[in-house]
Formats: sequence, C-alpha cells, structure tokens
Amino acid sequence: MPTYERLKGFRDLYAPEMAVRREVTDTVESVARRYGFREIDTPRLEPAAMWTDKSGDDIVDELYAFEDHGGRHVTLAPELTPTVARMYAAKAQELSKPVKWFSTRPFWRYEAVQQGRFREFHQTNIDVFGSAEPEADAEVLATAADALTELGLAADDFEFRVSHRDILGALLRSFEGTVDATAAIRAVDKSEKVDENEYLDLLHDAGLDYDRAREFDDLLAVDDPADLDELADFAPDSEDLAAAVDNLRSVLRAADDLGVGDHCDLSLRTARGLDYYTGAVFECFDATGEVGRSVFGGGRYDDLIEAFGGRPTPAVGVAPGHAPLGLLLERAGVAPEATVETDYYVLQVGDTRPTAARIARDLRSRGHVVESDVSGRSFGAQLEYADSIDADTVVVVGERDLEDGEVTVKEMASGDQTTAPVEAFPGDHDRPTYDDFA
Amino acid sequence: MPTYERLKGFRDLYAPEMAVRREVTDTVESVARRYGFREIDTPRLEPAAMWTDKSGDDIVDELYAFEDHGGRHVTLAPELTPTVARMYAAKAQELSKPVKWFSTRPFWRYEAVQQGRFREFHQTNIDVFGSAEPEADAEVLATAADALTELGLAADDFEFRVSHRDILGALLRSFEGTVDATAAIRAVDKSEKVDENEYLDLLHDAGLDYDRAREFDDLLAVDDPADLDELADFAPDSEDLAAAVDNLRSVLRAADDLGVGDHCDLSLRTARGLDYYTGAVFECFDATGEVGRSVFGGGRYDDLIEAFGGRPTPAVGVAPGHAPLGLLLERAGVAPEATVETDYYVLQVGDTRPTAARIARDLRSRGHVVESDVSGRSFGAQLEYADSIDADTVVVVGERDLEDGEVTVKEMASGDQTTAPVEAFPGDHDRPTYDDFA
Repeated sequence: MPTYERLKGFRDLYAPEMAVRREVTDTVESVARRYGFREIDTPRLEPAAMWTDKSGDDIVDELYAFEDHGGRHVTLAPELTPTVARMYAAKAQELSKPVKWFSTRPFWRYEAVQQGRFREFHQTNIDVFGSAEPEADAEVLATAADALTELGLAADDFEFRVSHRDILGALLRSFEGTVDATAAIRAVDKSEKVDENEYLDLLHDAGLDYDRAREFDDLLAVDDPADLDELADFAPDSEDLAAAVDNLRSVLRAADDLGVGDHCDLSLRTARGLDYYTGAVFECFDATGEVGRSVFGGGRYDDLIEAFGGRPTPAVGVAPGHAPLGLLLERAGVAPEATVETDYYVLQVGDTRPTAARIARDLRSRGHVVESDVSGRSFGAQLEYADSIDADTVVVVGERDLEDGEVTVKEMASGDQTTAPVEAFPGDHDRPTYDDFA
Repeated sequence: MPTYERLKGFRDLYAPEMAVRREVTDTVESVARRYGFREIDTPRLEPAAMWTDKSGDDIVDELYAFEDHGGRHVTLAPELTPTVARMYAAKAQELSKPVKWFSTRPFWRYEAVQQGRFREFHQTNIDVFGSAEPEADAEVLATAADALTELGLAADDFEFRVSHRDILGALLRSFEGTVDATAAIRAVDKSEKVDENEYLDLLHDAGLDYDRAREFDDLLAVDDPADLDELADFAPDSEDLAAAVDNLRSVLRAADDLGVGDHCDLSLRTARGLDYYTGAVFECFDATGEVGRSVFGGGRYDDLIEAFGGRPTPAVGVAPGHAPLGLLLERAGVAPEATVETDYYVLQVGDTRPTAARIARDLRSRGHVVESDVSGRSFGAQLEYADSIDADTVVVVGERDLEDGEVTVKEMASGDQTTAPVEAFPGDHDRPTYDDFA
C-alpha cells in the first residue's frame, strides 16, 4: 500500500507541539477578549475575484485558486481582511459600532518555505471597524503589546516600529514631478532587505531622481516624535502632511495613555508591504534582532471596506502569526513547554473495571485529566504508560486491595505510595494526592 | 466597486453565532481532554491521492481537489481519518500507545446544501489508536455521551444506536452464493432512508435473493443484547460471527461499566455509510426523532492505518459535527445563547483618557471583558453603545467627578448608580459592582 507525505509547507502538529500553539493562541485570544474583541468565524474558501479583481497585488501569484465543481473561481483565503470587509459590508446597518472582531485560523500562500514561514499559516486577526480616531489605533497596539507581555515577553524583548502611510504619501507628493507613491512605499518596505543602491534604484523607478530619493530617505530617519514638527515643515503647504503628522502624534499619545507607549518606536522606514494600508502602520520586531524579520504587523486600512462594496468605513487591525511569534518566544526563552500532562492514571489490576471507571469518572467530574486502561495491559505496562503520559498520581485499583476496601495512591514524582479507603477516593477531595492519605 | 458574496454552503459566523459554536466546541473539547485525548492539528490541504487511490469511495466526487502551482494534485480534506492515519504511520515507533487524539477543524465536501449540512463543516474528531480492546470502543462512547450530557442534554434526549460491521459481514458470508458485503452494508445504511422495496432491491443487487434479503433483514431486528446468542446460532459454524457477537457484547458491557450503557441501544440496522469501518459502529440520534437524521457517528476502523502505509493498528473514534449537534441542542432547548457579553464599559467624559485607561487596564488584569471609547463619542452615544454590548457595569470617568476624586458606578440592569473613590476602583475588589459602593 502507498504511503503518503504531507504537502511541503504544511505541518502536522503532534500533541506536544500543539500544546504550545494552544497555549499561545489561548493567551492571545484571552487578551483580545478582555479588550472586548468578539470572536467570529469565516469561510476558508472565498471567491477568487476578491483578490484577482485588485490588479497589481503580489498576493495573486501566491493564491491556492481553482475552479470548483460548480464552475466557480474560488481560492483558499491568503489573508482575512477582504473577508471581514465583506462581512462588515453585508451587515453594516445592524452592527453596533465600533465593531471589534478577532479570529484565529489558517491562511494559505504558495510561496517559498523558510524558517517560521509556511504555506499554511495560522494568524489571530484583531480588528476595529468604524472608528477613525487615534484611540482605535492605540487600542490595537495595546492589545498586541498586552498579548506579548501575557505570553511572558519582557518590555525589552520586543518593539513596535510605528510609521504612517499618509506621511510617506504626503512627502512623496510634495516632490516635483510624477511619483508612483505605491511603488515608492513598496521600496521603503524593502529598504531593510536590499542594499542601499538597490533601494535607491527602486525609489528612482518610482519617479524620484537620485537626489530626491536620498532626501526622501533622510526625512524618514526621524525617530523622536518631538522632531515630527520639522518633518511637517519640509512641505509647509501640504495640509495632508500636517494632518498625517498630527494623527501619528495622536496615536502615539493615545498609546502612552493606554500604557503601551514604551513599546512603540517611531520608525517611518517601516512601511508594511501591503498596499491597502492608509494611516498609522506598525511592525513588531525582536528587540535583540536575533529574529531577523518582522514578527507581525498591523495598521489602519480606511479604504478597504468601501473597496469591497461597503460604505466608507475606517478600520485598523493587527494579525500576529503564530509561527513567527513562536520564534520570538523561543528566542526569549519563554515558549510554552512542548509536553502532555496528565493528572491521574487509574490503574486496573484484575477485574476492577467498574470501580476504576467510577473513580476515573469522579475525578473527571472535578475537571481533571484522567486516563485508565483501554488495552487490557499488565500492571507494569500500565505503569510505564502512566509514566509516558507524565501522570502526576497513579491510583491503583486492585482486586485484593478492593477486598479490604482500599486503593493505592502513588505519587509518580517521588514514587511514594500509600493506601486510601476506596469510598473516600476522591470523596470530598477536590484533587486528592498522596499527601492527603499518607 | 463590486460586492462579493460568500460561497454557497459556506458560513459567516458573526459574534453571537460564534459564541454558540465556541461554547459547544469548548465543552466537547474539555470532556475529550479530561479523558486524556490530546489535541493535534493537521493540514487542511492534503495530496488528493489519499482519497482518489481508494476507488469506489463516494467521497471522491465531492472533493474540492485541484492542481497547485507546483503541479501537485491536492484536495481540501473531506474528513480527518486518512490524515491521522498518515500521522500515526509516520511516527508509530515513537508514539506511546494507545495514542488518543482530538482536534476541531473544518472539512469540505461539494454536496447538496441542506439544514445542518454545509460544504464547509466543523467536526471534533476523537480517536484512540493502538487498542483493539472493547474498553477503547466504550471509552469513545463514554466521551461522546459525557460531552452531550455536559452540553445540557438529558439522558432521554439522545440515543446511541450501536451496531457491528463484523456481525453484518459474517451474516452475509453465511448465505450461499457470492454476496458483495460492502454493497449489502451500504444497503443497510440506506434502509431508513429508502422504502422497503428499494432496500430489498439494493440487497438483491448485492447478491442476496429476495427471500435471503428478507431473512437477513429480519436477523438485524434484534434489539436486546440478550438475544445476540440466537443471532450467533443462525450460523453456528461461523467463528467470525461468534467472535463479532462476543465483541459487541463486550463493548456494551464495557460501556455499562463506564457509566454510559443506558445511552446505548443495540441496533444492527445502523451500518454507517463509510466503507472503512470494521467492528463496532454507532450513530447518535435525537431520541424524539425531530432531528431526523443521524447527528454524528463513529466506530472501529482497524484496517485503515495499514491502508495508509502504517503497520496494522486498531483504531476507534467518533466525530461530532457542530452543525447537526447544534440542531439537536436547539431541539432540546439547551443551545447556548447567541449573545455577546461585557463586564464593564469605562465611559469617558471630557479629557479623562489616562484615568479611564488605567481603570480599564486594572479591570482587564482581573480577567474581565472591558471596553472603553475609541470613537470620541458623547456621553449618550457611549451609554447607548455600552447597552448594545450588554455591559453589566458602566464606570463613568468624568472630569468633574475626578476633581472630587470620584468615579460613578452604574449597574446597567437596574439603572442604579453611585460614586466610588477613583483610587479604590477597582482597588482590591476582584469584580467591583454598584453594590460594593452603594
């Protein structure tokens, strides 16, 4: 019979690895819930036109797209935003604003597989729809920062590099001649990944001569919010620039008030690769630089709901990817342990199944993880299995013990064991252990 | 700009509906965890050959299959079993047996959309690998029954109809002539959905003449485990039949010992549609019959791991689907409510953002769901929003109140409100309410 191999860029998560992802996901989601983000669920498959209609999008070449049995052109979703935009547009009238949604699910892109990057990858998307105010941007930053802190990262483990698309756009428009702002912003996004000449060539291709390209790049060097005024002075006639600078300053101030200002660094050269961002954008980086690339990013995308058929609706969000997040947690030494844990193993010796089952059931009703024999195994084989699943306590239910009305309680870490009256196990003990009966 | 519609048979779950699925999923998973099933995660996309190599499988026509950019024939997985079989086979040596896995995820089949049946559907798969003992079958039954009970269903809300593939197979082989057992078992699976003549025609097509077909069907009428002996007497020379009858009786006895025997009804006409089942099989039905079809099913599939390239490995599992499960919960009046809930709304009046943010942060650190203004809204608009998200308590942080060192605490249900010292909010209160300060 043939053996099958899983597809390249896809992952089988066995129990220990899944325990890690579960803990990370639960932590991120729990922080999002506390900020009042509400969980939604979305189709994994969508009309391909949601991506192919927008020409010039790099994503299209990476789609897992195909025709279904009904002749529909469909694609596995490579990102959530168009889907939530579609959902928001479909119920915009009846939804109470702001709408705050989160969801954790996989996405798919056919691209080169590398460390921390897979063709099937899991993200928790966290978005606010219906507020253009800087508080919404700041709340998204605060949710992300709190999630990282809750995961065990220290303040000096990570940094949010905050930029603003409208500042970049207004600066570019202030230069003479025709500049392709989208191409120039993509060049900025690539600036850290290519050498300087290539970066300047890209800006040149976007319509800036080399002197202007250097001047533009110099302007982006500002890293102190206090110096943003000087930046605004570069094009004093640009109301757009003044408004964008003011907005970025307001976002940073709101982040301060929300208690996460220290995590935010002004970094205009952080541009975010995707075209649809409109206002403040940010990327999370490993502060040590050991994880070389952006861990995740987010930002404002005020035009997208309208592009998907809705009324103009401001929106801002962030989407931590679980694989790169895992790299950061590992670098910082705070990744959850890849193990399975068991509270009790109820060991059966002889024909004691009804009593063993009753004990297991009582322990489970108290919320504990309890296994018992389902393989007709010997005492020794059961004990070995209990060890392999890291059971804290083994309860031995033996025929002879039962004749005396007793079970044996064994603490696996120490090997200590004692007997307990079978009627008192678990009795009124919430989590009976060796110590309760020794 | 174009508007997009989601694909037929796919669902957008907004927050209230997702809250229902979340609660159901969490409950089912929590029961599985307590039985020692460990969560895994699996690729949504697999090599199509995992399904197409097995000819004659109805599933193939329903696949969302396509060729990826690398020329691979791939498919969205229509079920979990081949994937976990592949994963088990890949690590069979190092896995501690029995292997007990669960996972909740979507699957896809291109088929007719009807009530409670979608093209993208979510299931929690719960499986034991590596034990051929009846205790493993019983543990799967017990896990499923406990999950339904924990969801709020009463004992008389549901029933597990338990059958045995090897009994059906051995009976069929005991007839003279060549009988296509697979076809005959599929006929049994359809017996409740088609009229009697059609059913008998199907059995006839499988190689039983009409007299034998009636005789076979009569044999399946046994519904008391005590009468299984008579069934075994039908073909006294068949060791297979005797062994299968014995196995089914052992499974039912083990289910009794595990405390779920009352949920199990002997029902040999329950055959399960899928070809790969080998031993005990069961389907969960709405006891009132209002939900007409099987809610979910499970059973033993001892040959499948080997079919996927592993060593022969016994396996048994169950896979509750969340949409049909929802129908049963609704019929019984125990479906979770489709709502969103909020513990606190922190209302800002004037320039009080830092204090409001501090209070919101303190409340969140105690685990509460807390929202505050991110839209620059008026008092009235904020109160209206707090009402729309069903906030229990509104904390009004106003400029004038703050001058007196106070905030206002408003209980939304009664409308009662009082003031509290800002420093004492939340102070050492774990969940401060109106009552704490009135």
